[in-house]
Amino acid sequence: MWRLYQFPLCPFSRKVRLLLSEKGVGYELWRENPWDASDEFWALNPAGRTPVLHDPEKKTTLCDSRAICEYFEETVDQSPMINGTVKERAEIRRLVALFDENFFTDVTGPLLQERMKKRIVLRQPPDSRRLREAMKMAHGHLDYIDYLIDTRPWLAGSRMSLADLTAAAQISVADYLGGIDWSGHEQSKGWYSVFKSRPSFRPLLSERMEVITPPAHYSQVDG
Amino acid sequence: MWRLYQFPLCPFSRKVRLLLSEKGVGYELWRENPWDASDEFWALNPAGRTPVLHDPEKKTTLCDSRAICEYFEETVDQSPMINGTVKERAEIRRLVALFDENFFTDVTGPLLQERMKKRIVLRQPPDSRRLREAMKMAHGHLDYIDYLIDTRPWLAGSRMSLADLTAAAQISVADYLGGIDWSGHEQSKGWYSVFKSRPSFRPLLSERMEVITPPAHYSQVDG
Repeated sequence: MWRLYQFPLCPFSRKVRLLLSEKGVGYELWRENPWDASDEFWALNPAGRTPVLHDPEKKTTLCDSRAICEYFEETVDQSPMINGTVKERAEIRRLVALFDENFFTDVTGPLLQERMKKRIVLRQPPDSRRLREAMKMAHGHLDYIDYLIDTRPWLAGSRMSLADLTAAAQISVADYLGGIDWSGHEQSKGWYSVFKSRPSFRPLLSERMEVITPPAHYSQVDG
Repeated sequence: MWRLYQFPLCPFSRKVRLLLSEKGVGYELWRENPWDASDEFWALNPAGRTPVLHDPEKKTTLCDSRAICEYFEETVDQSPMINGTVKERAEIRRLVALFDENFFTDVTGPLLQERMKKRIVLRQPPDSRRLREAMKMAHGHLDYIDYLIDTRPWLAGSRMSLADLTAAAQISVADYLGGIDWSGHEQSKGWYSVFKSRPSFRPLLSERMEVITPPAHYSQVDG
């Protein structure tokens, strides 16, 4: 059975969990804190990042969330998530990169640093200026999602895709950390609440990271 | 014809140029400085990053270097670069991410900041401590390439792949900026000098970024 090395607020692990769940692939969770990674983990992934997916029986180790998603897209037919024409597939991958890189750099990354790492690892108070900046950047990204959802049923087009899973994974971590103000983003909120009610998403929303409590609306489907 | 929006020292654009050249796809270069991007460029790519590939006749815009590479892998049979079994393809994509993310964050990114952006845009002297750190991190990455080349002919296995193009693209920018000390890395140096002599690589090595001069060995095939 696949073992997923992750920690509860890793947005890249959340993307992989959503994909595996949508595709009906079984896995067990294995907690790995990147700030205190084990030698075993470094041996599996020289990049030192979560997620890593490992199956000792198959002697297979998969590293990097995009490489993992492409692997299951190529091996499991159920619920295709990088689908359509080559142009549509390029659009899905463009948006995956936009949320993995820009949203993470602008929003999720700073929130994780200020509200998780400083609390759990560094024992420092958060930098309120950086938090305000991250929340401001989040508004810009939600504006873009509003725009996309105005013109398409799903982020990359007419079907749910890895772009939606990637964006939802990043946003869910930012929302957990109190970084998302949904007011004025009706389209984004509507799109995200559809996700929140999916069976693949429920286990993520019920998990808690030690010490850090999410806002009340975080796990409410109509929140 | 495809127009590639890029600047000479963008490692992600270099990866795409190597791939297009290996696959025999024609394109024209279009200079775009990310620190001074045009409105036209932002309209093509809301992520604001190079490379972007645009064909007005085909009405196609491709953003994100990995999405671009996957597109040409799916549409052009010549010189497959994400090839082999699903496990081999996952290994190629793992290494692409390792060099795009870890090598860039540890080495190329800091060098571009200190030796290009501070010189051309910010008009500040480089931070010598950050430069020393980047060069130290480069040694660690070359150690890993040495290890890979000890066990395989190419980085991801028995055939040249996108992993090699990605690593060579990052290293070429770091080498231009004087961040690579090749001493003690015979395997890496041998692997890289094979690249330097490829027709796809020659145009990159003869290009110069204004004001910034590379070290003498940079464009020498046996350097």
